Amino acid sequence: MSEQNKEEKFTVTPWEVKGKIDYDKLIQQFGTQEIDDALLRRISAIAGELHPLLRRKVFFSQRDLKWILDRYEANEKFVLYTGRGPSGHTHLGHLMPWIFTKWIQDKFGAPLYFQMTDDEKFMFKDTLSLPEAQKFSYENALDVIALGFDPKKTKVIIDTKHIGKLYPIAIQVAKRVTFSTAKAVFGFDNSTNIGSIFFTSMQAAPAILPSVEAGRNVPCLIPCAIDQDPHFRVARDVVPLLGYYKPALIHCKMLPSLAGGDKMSASIPQTTIFTTDAPKAAKKKVMGAFTGGATTVEEQRRNGANPDVCSVFSYYYYLFEYDDKKLGEIEQKCRSGSMLCGECKMMLAEKLEKFLAAHQERREAAKDRINDFIPE
Amino acid sequence: MSEQNKEEKFTVTPWEVKGKIDYDKLIQQFGTQEIDDALLRRISAIAGELHPLLRRKVFFSQRDLKWILDRYEANEKFVLYTGRGPSGHTHLGHLMPWIFTKWIQDKFGAPLYFQMTDDEKFMFKDTLSLPEAQKFSYENALDVIALGFDPKKTKVIIDTKHIGKLYPIAIQVAKRVTFSTAKAVFGFDNSTNIGSIFFTSMQAAPAILPSVEAGRNVPCLIPCAIDQDPHFRVARDVVPLLGYYKPALIHCKMLPSLAGGDKMSASIPQTTIFTTDAPKAAKKKVMGAFTGGATTVEEQRRNGANPDVCSVFSYYYYLFEYDDKKLGEIEQKCRSGSMLCGECKMMLAEKLEKFLAAHQERREAAKDRINDFIPE
Repeated sequence: MSEQNKEEKFTVTPWEVKGKIDYDKLIQQFGTQEIDDALLRRISAIAGELHPLLRRKVFFSQRDLKWILDRYEANEKFVLYTGRGPSGHTHLGHLMPWIFTKWIQDKFGAPLYFQMTDDEKFMFKDTLSLPEAQKFSYENALDVIALGFDPKKTKVIIDTKHIGKLYPIAIQVAKRVTFSTAKAVFGFDNSTNIGSIFFTSMQAAPAILPSVEAGRNVPCLIPCAIDQDPHFRVARDVVPLLGYYKPALIHCKMLPSLAGGDKMSASIPQTTIFTTDAPKAAKKKVMGAFTGGATTVEEQRRNGANPDVCSVFSYYYYLFEYDDKKLGEIEQKCRSGSMLCGECKMMLAEKLEKFLAAHQERREAAKDRINDFIPE
Repeated sequence: MSEQNKEEKFTVTPWEVKGKIDYDKLIQQFGTQEIDDALLRRISAIAGELHPLLRRKVFFSQRDLKWILDRYEANEKFVLYTGRGPSGHTHLGHLMPWIFTKWIQDKFGAPLYFQMTDDEKFMFKDTLSLPEAQKFSYENALDVIALGFDPKKTKVIIDTKHIGKLYPIAIQVAKRVTFSTAKAVFGFDNSTNIGSIFFTSMQAAPAILPSVEAGRNVPCLIPCAIDQDPHFRVARDVVPLLGYYKPALIHCKMLPSLAGGDKMSASIPQTTIFTTDAPKAAKKKVMGAFTGGATTVEEQRRNGANPDVCSVFSYYYYLFEYDDKKLGEIEQKCRSGSMLCGECKMMLAEKLEKFLAAHQERREAAKDRINDFIPE
């Protein structure tokens, strides 16, 4: 087999992630920059520490992050902007970048604009009604609030609710994006509906809104999974034409599925942990997860297992074991064969059960505070 | 020359009117119906009279007008919906269908939704800023109010201001319109901006808004110039899929330009009468208008002139002489050569001066009442 044939094909768009993702290649394809050691040192110097998701290169790619730090050190504070397409309940893959965003808010004192794109999900999903998308905006907002964002510094913007603020900005973006561009970036064709074609201008709007509200140019940093980058590639071309700063980005990899795929996906609930899962049900999903174990106990005791392809190990790595020493121990026991998959899964399941129970308690309490986060 | 070659080509879209319009052919092209005598008799029976613009077949085309009258007689009242693209000051060509709309409101007791598409004009016109389009929404609203619409029954809806109500409806329309359809109906291509592509869903929204607000299906009649029909052709395909009545339409011809062209156009101010023109300036425009006169006085005294091609005569016909007997006298004097163009123009100019002075007074008074028409 030639080198070329060995390369697996993959697709990453805001609406589809397919194949085995080569994140190094994605940096080249999308034209982003990696987060290098110099940047990590600067972040660490300001924050006093490095978040594990940075240390572990889960947040691995960026646009203009150096510029954001320059502005920050020149006392020009940035705002954060991230969001969610509310097509269903939140799963752990969504939660991961939000956890990181919370860390940035804490360390940099940054206000957050959190966008719920109920219009997008309604227009892109045949089977989703607008009331359903609107309902999930509120459901997902509970998860955001449960993570502990500062209510004084956090606004949850729901597209159909806050359209009065967003639309006048969105049409200024839309006027400067041709169908050619939208087609090339998002893969639209003649059968795409005209709402989906327009939508990227709505996703650009919150990057400008803080400047409009402040009456001056405000730097904006967008933490998001790399699949959302195409929207902001378009936005970054247009926003300077309107007189605003290009938004900066910091991208993470996608949280793998429990089936071992490249992205946890709400459409396969058996291998996806939702924040609303009963802890016992979530445990069951973990116990059925794909691992890097051998076919027989004897073989695994003898040769060990492979954490590099194991979905259970990736959950420790991405979310549930932020202590590097403990993670190292898990890895060593796995590779050596001294710990079998069942034991390892059980340990993760217990951590997950604990996390879900606590998160669900905070999520319940968030119901009383939701109005503190959603502007009138 | 063959029959086919003799046919002049013409184009009528919401954004372009070109060539000598054959309105009979337009009815075929657009697939509308003429307003026949049976319909005129029914309207007359309800209203107690026929508006001159109906009698004179300036309103000449319709969709589902019979159905609207059926519903009306079954005690299911309709709402009116018309609008304006606020790219500049109002001219007489805009005013004409509004005058007719006011008559329908009076005779049928119909509420009116009047849409100002500031978003459209901003997105379609390279040189127009959003604040300019927003300013003209208010300027144009003054002309609407000056015509005497009932404030209790009339809402002026400005797209960027009332987007909170319109957008959730517009995206339901947009989800069901493909780029293919928009391309075929409006002539879009790859260089069209994505806001313009989306826009037709915004123009569909006010046809549904009354039903949304009432919580039940409300028949809707749209009086408009025929060039706006393509928007509603799209809307009529989609609206029933959302569970609402198709909007009905009643179409008028375009008010000719003073240069003799087929449509008064704001882009040629010398041959267009704006409601804000100083009466003296307007008079000057009339005195320079294109007529059906002969090249010399002698020839005209001998052979008469041709009112069929005369822009001055069309102003009497469309707007300034609604008394059929008096209009007949003007026509007779014109054809016989007993009245020359100068005298005829002077007579129109005086009528126009009087109209403008009175309209501008009502327009000034409308500034104090504008909030009665524009919902918060």
